[in-house]
Amino acid sequence: MANAPVQRMSQLMAKTLRDDPADAEVLSHKLLVRAGYVRRTAAGIWTWLPLGKKVLANVERVVREEMDAIGAQEVLLPALLPREPYEATGRWDEYGPELFRLQDRKGGDYLLGPTHEEIFTLMVKDQASSYKDLPVILYQIQSKYRDEARPRAGILRGREFLMKDSYSFDLEDEGLAKSYALHRQAYQRVFERLGLDYRICAATAGAMGGSKSEEFLAPAEAGEDTFADCPNCDFAANTEAIAYELKPVDAAGVPAAEEIPTPDTPTIETLAASLGVEASATLKNLLVKVDGEIVAVGVPGDREVDMGKVEAHFAPAAVEMVTEADFMARPDLVRGYVGPQGLGKVKYVADPRVAPGTAWITGANKADTHAKNVVAGRDFEVDEYVDVVVVQEGDPCPACGTGLRLDRAIEIGHIFQLGRKYADALKLDVLGQNGKPVRVTMGSYGIGVSRAVAALAEQTADDKGLCWPAEVAPADVHVVAAGKALQTELALDVSEKLSAAGLRVLVDDRPGVSPGVKFTDSELIGVPRILVAGRRAAEGVVELKDRRTGEREELTVDEAVARLTA
Amino acid sequence: MANAPVQRMSQLMAKTLRDDPADAEVLSHKLLVRAGYVRRTAAGIWTWLPLGKKVLANVERVVREEMDAIGAQEVLLPALLPREPYEATGRWDEYGPELFRLQDRKGGDYLLGPTHEEIFTLMVKDQASSYKDLPVILYQIQSKYRDEARPRAGILRGREFLMKDSYSFDLEDEGLAKSYALHRQAYQRVFERLGLDYRICAATAGAMGGSKSEEFLAPAEAGEDTFADCPNCDFAANTEAIAYELKPVDAAGVPAAEEIPTPDTPTIETLAASLGVEASATLKNLLVKVDGEIVAVGVPGDREVDMGKVEAHFAPAAVEMVTEADFMARPDLVRGYVGPQGLGKVKYVADPRVAPGTAWITGANKADTHAKNVVAGRDFEVDEYVDVVVVQEGDPCPACGTGLRLDRAIEIGHIFQLGRKYADALKLDVLGQNGKPVRVTMGSYGIGVSRAVAALAEQTADDKGLCWPAEVAPADVHVVAAGKALQTELALDVSEKLSAAGLRVLVDDRPGVSPGVKFTDSELIGVPRILVAGRRAAEGVVELKDRRTGEREELTVDEAVARLTA
Repeated sequence: MANAPVQRMSQLMAKTLRDDPADAEVLSHKLLVRAGYVRRTAAGIWTWLPLGKKVLANVERVVREEMDAIGAQEVLLPALLPREPYEATGRWDEYGPELFRLQDRKGGDYLLGPTHEEIFTLMVKDQASSYKDLPVILYQIQSKYRDEARPRAGILRGREFLMKDSYSFDLEDEGLAKSYALHRQAYQRVFERLGLDYRICAATAGAMGGSKSEEFLAPAEAGEDTFADCPNCDFAANTEAIAYELKPVDAAGVPAAEEIPTPDTPTIETLAASLGVEASATLKNLLVKVDGEIVAVGVPGDREVDMGKVEAHFAPAAVEMVTEADFMARPDLVRGYVGPQGLGKVKYVADPRVAPGTAWITGANKADTHAKNVVAGRDFEVDEYVDVVVVQEGDPCPACGTGLRLDRAIEIGHIFQLGRKYADALKLDVLGQNGKPVRVTMGSYGIGVSRAVAALAEQTADDKGLCWPAEVAPADVHVVAAGKALQTELALDVSEKLSAAGLRVLVDDRPGVSPGVKFTDSELIGVPRILVAGRRAAEGVVELKDRRTGEREELTVDEAVARLTA
Repeated sequence: MANAPVQRMSQLMAKTLRDDPADAEVLSHKLLVRAGYVRRTAAGIWTWLPLGKKVLANVERVVREEMDAIGAQEVLLPALLPREPYEATGRWDEYGPELFRLQDRKGGDYLLGPTHEEIFTLMVKDQASSYKDLPVILYQIQSKYRDEARPRAGILRGREFLMKDSYSFDLEDEGLAKSYALHRQAYQRVFERLGLDYRICAATAGAMGGSKSEEFLAPAEAGEDTFADCPNCDFAANTEAIAYELKPVDAAGVPAAEEIPTPDTPTIETLAASLGVEASATLKNLLVKVDGEIVAVGVPGDREVDMGKVEAHFAPAAVEMVTEADFMARPDLVRGYVGPQGLGKVKYVADPRVAPGTAWITGANKADTHAKNVVAGRDFEVDEYVDVVVVQEGDPCPACGTGLRLDRAIEIGHIFQLGRKYADALKLDVLGQNGKPVRVTMGSYGIGVSRAVAALAEQTADDKGLCWPAEVAPADVHVVAAGKALQTELALDVSEKLSAAGLRVLVDDRPGVSPGVKFTDSELIGVPRILVAGRRAAEGVVELKDRRTGEREELTVDEAVARLTA
């Protein structure tokens, strides 16, 4: 391949900004806009300017190389997809408002692909007929669409975004486990090459269905996920995937349940204060509607309900909070004083901390009244145990019991063992060795390519601006002409030399821009190595600066070229 | 970059078919499906299988390299676009049903980008503020969407397709001419490297607006465009862009117009036969509705009206044919006997062949009656001269008068000097050297990347199958193991050697597939060089075959490797 031409900033479409954009909340959003990498086209919809496109292409290349290395075959599917296959798997409805739906000129229903399990399944159904055609791993790198309710955080959570999605097809569970392991290794290599700090965490499967699933999380302030890791063992998991173990206790010594008057205690705080107990001694009962039907969710009074866990548990059913109107319609449900011992036919889901035998202070289903010594399994039945609480710093590690640490993170990759959900819905069989049809088992795997750019920006930026790892930087070296004609001439000359040696060069040759502005911009743009033609240009001496450490060194042009191309 | 791993056909997702798909009309559609390059996902919506994706990526790479070489900067815009900018330029409506429109969850209007003039204009408005920031050429390679009424011909005319679109921004007309010339040269290099036979033809601007425009047409049976070229000079043009010169003649000797009874002659053929004249002596008047208003279009009786030219002339107004109901509502318009001399206030548009002074036999605006000696400019006025006839084989070359040849072709590229249409609509100014705002002038340029793959297939295929030029082929060499274990071992061994030498290798190692089927498939798939490990494998002798010429030669493995890597 030919060497990339030297990119002159005097011609580059990359206007840097002194101030953060008004709508930017997170670091990567601020810096990628300020440094001229991206611009907003509409809510959650972004344009990649030349510098941003280069970084994006670098991430794409690394992902492609590592996918090719595990024998995955690259394909390209349409983004505009017909309704029928998504109808067959139920996802046309399940996706809800997150799915962009549209009609063509003939009134046919289409969607913009959020992920492509259905179409890949049909592709393999068309292409593979025998056990000899499997296993196979297929991937694509393509724009995906999700109509997020609150697109935020710049390119971290857009409505159109670039993703690598891949799908494995195997005859047996062991094959699936192997395809899964191949992906896990490939992802590790990808994120290592990109220079991302990441953790592999156990995850819930979410809307994908299926069984085993892990997330690759990049710790960052701006992340929307919270993960827990153990300071003692190697346990790490998305907090949504942590489930407390159910440990029944003996309730033999607990006196009978008893009502207690508790006027003006509609909240846990007021109740605990009025009774002089810890909030953890009380049982909080949250009412939600699951596909319109009321369900009560019980958790200890000191814990918050994680609605993500509740939604994941009931998916694909829709979960809503109850409203004023629901209480009006159900006078048996006394707001602020609900207790599981008087719920009648209302389904009761409880956290495992509300284990059989545990005793609680809870609502008595009467205004201004609670009950104490209300024992799970004695005074009320739990229809279903589900861990639905928000994990807290210091909660015991499920593996070793040590107090967990919590951190925010960005989900940059996700691997799933889907199993046969899609193969069942779309009847994907191949002929087995014995001549009988075998239902295929699948995996589905994603890397957020555009999101990885934002995650890298988040993790590597410093107070001066972006600071890219070499593998993804938009150039190998940023040459700055700090001065007049003499400096510009030297800068362009050394740029050509570096380009001829195979380096990707960005040169700041902007006329009429002060050295100070150029230095500031070079730090904002974040190419790892900066070469300045300045004060000693007449002697052929340049300054080589490390963007991260700030270390600088004066060198002759020949020395600098030798150093940079070493 | 690392060498590409050897691609084994035993693992490749590329099922070849013996028969043409039932819905396929054109050669490229048949062969690309049969050879396992593409599959239909929905009407006009295609999936690129691994072999197809490789060819597509090769075309993309060539386009990218040549765009970079003219200093164009690559960006990536969203495909999902907000309505407002397209509303501002009028294209939200003008596009009609060809535009995919949709709403997001909040009811906001969006479209799937058919081309991106508006968004690029806004990007430059955001990024460029001074004359110093121009000229600039920006490009992207991206999926585009057009809801074709009759998606046909496989990937030749899809509803989702891959396109390189670029846009130039200049201060002055001379700058635009230069950006246009740069694109013209880059396109020539692209199509030459791809191995496409093409012509550069003058074109109408169509729905883009603007002035100068040329098409790159690849002659092919399956093409939807017709172009004319001159066997004598270098004139070549899309037939829609050919305009006959207006040549007034002297009508002094023509007698006064006179009605003649012509019962039962509602068509030109019956009229000419009944009067014993050539159809070319008669004047045919077609009625159309332009945005609902009736317009008459006059052409010589022996010529067909080219509705594409009529529509292009009146665009963005909508052109429809008149209906029975229209005639009922307007008894002054006598069906089959319309003549321009009695049209009253109906606008009359005529072909330049109906020049001032020419005399015609035409309708007398009475049933069963025509008029003769009806002279243009004497007996009726032409409101507007527009060449609207279908160009015919043998029509005079506008440059030298020689009879033109006509051919079918596929439009693979299009370059436009747009001028200030979009800059005016979106108010794109930069500060000029004198400190005053200057309105920017633009060009817009497209290459159909996916369509180029189909055009290449059309032009290079032979009766055995696809036959790719080296630059775009999915592999450099197709190794065939024609035999048992011995042959397979040798094939895999030589494949590794070729791969280590940097070649892209496809090896047919499918067990249990006969040599005959493998040979047929290798010819269908169309890699330019085929290396067979067969009869003389035990001696380490292989056969090297040229896919196009069929020439074959026996060589030792070392000789074959040396030859292929030379």
